[in-house]
Amino acid sequence: MHRITILYGAPADPEAFERHYTEVHVPLASTLPGLRRFTRSHPLGMGSAAPAPYFFFVAELWFDDEDALKSALKSPEMAETAADAQTFDVASMTMFTGEVVESVF
Amino acid sequence: MHRITILYGAPADPEAFERHYTEVHVPLASTLPGLRRFTRSHPLGMGSAAPAPYFFFVAELWFDDEDALKSALKSPEMAETAADAQTFDVASMTMFTGEVVESVF
Repeated sequence: MHRITILYGAPADPEAFERHYTEVHVPLASTLPGLRRFTRSHPLGMGSAAPAPYFFFVAELWFDDEDALKSALKSPEMAETAADAQTFDVASMTMFTGEVVESVF
Repeated sequence: MHRITILYGAPADPEAFERHYTEVHVPLASTLPGLRRFTRSHPLGMGSAAPAPYFFFVAELWFDDEDALKSALKSPEMAETAADAQTFDVASMTMFTGEVVESVF
């Protein structure tokens, strides 16, 4: 599958961020054409270490293939979703895409 | 599911890194108790932007639950896998864990 990963840095107001993310952003992102899965995770550090500050929250949007991902990126739904993301009061926002390959073992 | 994510920075010698990773590291990591999936991805930047240098390569180890993940972290197999990772000539290595939640929409 192909995936868009978004790493969010710490929000100024974590509670407000979670609320807006759940109530507004997830419904918007869920309209993206070709979206197969939408996974979220709150990173924990390893052992006693806190995770880096730009790893407050990770969201992943999964698509069947590269074409589906590229179509979603160019869609009006993505424009609306991205516009909403611009309102987030977070320390950083890092996006990348890539094919996700299963290791055979 | 619960997941260990490892973000690798750019290796000094990408070809040697890929070879060692595939031929030595994947077989070692594949012995981890409770490992359900092992996914890998080479991040691409969005649009014309290159991804940040600490996003050369992403590996993910998936476990059924937190207990399975914690057991794997403490296992002798992990000690051996981690020792091998210490030989990688990469710019950075960042690990974090976390539950991966499926968004319902």
